[in-house]
Amino acid sequence: MKRSLAIDMDETMADTTKEINRWYEREFGQALTEEELHAKDFGKAVPPERAGVVKRFLNTPGFFRHLEPFPDAIDVVRELNKRYEVFIVSAAMEFPNSLKDKVEWLDEFFPFLNWRQYCLCGDKSVVQTDLMIDDRSRNFIHLKDARTYLYTAHHNVLETAYERVNNWQEVATRLL
Amino acid sequence: MKRSLAIDMDETMADTTKEINRWYEREFGQALTEEELHAKDFGKAVPPERAGVVKRFLNTPGFFRHLEPFPDAIDVVRELNKRYEVFIVSAAMEFPNSLKDKVEWLDEFFPFLNWRQYCLCGDKSVVQTDLMIDDRSRNFIHLKDARTYLYTAHHNVLETAYERVNNWQEVATRLL
Repeated sequence: MKRSLAIDMDETMADTTKEINRWYEREFGQALTEEELHAKDFGKAVPPERAGVVKRFLNTPGFFRHLEPFPDAIDVVRELNKRYEVFIVSAAMEFPNSLKDKVEWLDEFFPFLNWRQYCLCGDKSVVQTDLMIDDRSRNFIHLKDARTYLYTAHHNVLETAYERVNNWQEVATRLL
Repeated sequence: MKRSLAIDMDETMADTTKEINRWYEREFGQALTEEELHAKDFGKAVPPERAGVVKRFLNTPGFFRHLEPFPDAIDVVRELNKRYEVFIVSAAMEFPNSLKDKVEWLDEFFPFLNWRQYCLCGDKSVVQTDLMIDDRSRNFIHLKDARTYLYTAHHNVLETAYERVNNWQEVATRLL
């Protein structure tokens, strides 16, 4: 039997921060720098009075429809899908307008997957798989006997407690 | 620690068949009878050339927004939510237009729940909880050491392999 593998979307398959930063620059005239984002969530890296604007971006219909997949994500997920029982698990529920966009994005960029493999939830503690790739270590805590891979993102660079993958080539090296 | 409890939406919290039958009657002039629905999925109870129409209903924006909650579902889920770690788990992904409707429906009728408790997926085999209430026994198969309750629906009346609940008062008797 194939082992089950949960793969996160934002900041794991998709470069969500790049898109937030594009919208941020359009709104405020200047994008955040790497230094400003270092070890912080985007919403914590901006002046407090702008945090609500970032949330507004995330609940704008269309925002999640046009994210860039990370380099090699498509090719590596295609191969993973042959060897593992892959589920795409995204904590999307805070932003109901993202739900359909996320399904359409997966259908477009990952056409070898199908809707039976998609899981859009609020809290991932309801999900149990043998392996998980995610940029949020909080999503690993409830897993039982799972192998976890922390996908490097600006907000998690200081975390040391989990095995890390920096890009999709490293995922391939570990899992294929 | 509270035990986790997954509750299905269609045909468990919500009377989806009643709404399909309303739309069916509006389209074809006559609703299906109890006898026609006996032990069958709605899509199998209609003439084969009409099965596509039923799928079209289910992917019409708004369809899932106006379902009737089953009697006592709201009151019993409110109490369950105090005693269990409740997740609402719906295999909604076949119909992407249903996703936002389902979130808004839950927000309206079950305001004591929050989005962290919602899980809209394709195949429920990615979900693991201590208990599950569902009208589809196929959703129980992958569970490990879980207590399962088959919520009676027209399509499952001939199944005998699972403990059954016929209404929300019976859920209350078993779980509260």
